[in-house]
Amino acid sequence: MTVKYPNGKTFETKKPIGTQADKKIVSAKLHKSAANRGMGLEYDLNLSNEYYLEKNLCLVTKRPTPINIVKVDYTKGARITNAYFEKQSTTDYNGVYKGRYLDFEAKSTRSKTSFPLANISEHQIKHLSKVIKHGGIAFFIIEFALLNNDTYLLDASYIIDFINKEKRKSIPYEDVKKYGHQIKRGYNPRLDYLQVVQEVYFK
Amino acid sequence: MTVKYPNGKTFETKKPIGTQADKKIVSAKLHKSAANRGMGLEYDLNLSNEYYLEKNLCLVTKRPTPINIVKVDYTKGARITNAYFEKQSTTDYNGVYKGRYLDFEAKSTRSKTSFPLANISEHQIKHLSKVIKHGGIAFFIIEFALLNNDTYLLDASYIIDFINKEKRKSIPYEDVKKYGHQIKRGYNPRLDYLQVVQEVYFK
Repeated sequence: MTVKYPNGKTFETKKPIGTQADKKIVSAKLHKSAANRGMGLEYDLNLSNEYYLEKNLCLVTKRPTPINIVKVDYTKGARITNAYFEKQSTTDYNGVYKGRYLDFEAKSTRSKTSFPLANISEHQIKHLSKVIKHGGIAFFIIEFALLNNDTYLLDASYIIDFINKEKRKSIPYEDVKKYGHQIKRGYNPRLDYLQVVQEVYFK
Repeated sequence: MTVKYPNGKTFETKKPIGTQADKKIVSAKLHKSAANRGMGLEYDLNLSNEYYLEKNLCLVTKRPTPINIVKVDYTKGARITNAYFEKQSTTDYNGVYKGRYLDFEAKSTRSKTSFPLANISEHQIKHLSKVIKHGGIAFFIIEFALLNNDTYLLDASYIIDFINKEKRKSIPYEDVKKYGHQIKRGYNPRLDYLQVVQEVYFK
């Protein structure tokens, strides 16, 4: 059976999805693709980070999703049989470039006009404020999925200021273009954000 | 019922552990305490990191344990019903201090004479080599649990050199004392490794 997703990708299931229970009990990969609109962006960033690592340009890793484990069954070789997702209290990515600490969150939006701030958790804002306080480089990578995946690096301090000063609940696309820095897409790296980091923070 | 662990800690279970299956299907917290000898060290480091964060001294976070999710049951509100532990391909901790990138692994040993290198995975050595290559600060925190929890910061390059040059499979305690830097224990922070980082890497 073929399942279609909002992002246009399809997924082959091993057996037809029949009953209501079957529909709800699906593999986590399926869940991730469907629920996480940033999957394409995450994939592109992971490939870019692999490229940077191979070329000895920087070392950036993705933090694993925090999971609270309730039960482990050792009769099946440490199989986790009961657990739930925890909210990430930090950001998705961090690493090192020329000795400096980098920390960023990547978000994709399907809005064509603005970036909704509801995409960002208060924890992430607090975390990135602390990164700045300790001299690290903190930013967001924002993708407009329905605008040809147009993607920008936006310094975290801009978003923090926006949240503190503005009453609006989203940053207009025009402002992201104006105050952010467009990230080039290509074959390899897929999303060359490091070039922008170099230009913005090291010149 | 009270369960005793090798580290001397006890754990109260809610009901008596009876059958063989019961013995094997236990909570993950139980598992963690029993399996991970570094639990005390991890706890001390997490408290120290909280202290540093409160005092605005540095920002260091622990990476979540990577878990491979096989099945999620949405009938119970996104409950993970089948998953297994993945090997950590990086280290446990990273963060930022005065703009610089820090990355380290914490290990506790019950040996009284040496630190067994079997405690360190090849992935971790590769990861820390890359951290050094990109100008980050990379080290190990090594605790000798049975020597009054005597704890040292040992630069990662020392261990990498040791592995490359020496045939021995453990670093003698005397060498850890000689080439490492003792970390003071106290009430708060529990384990003041940042003081050592300041002395070793910022002077």
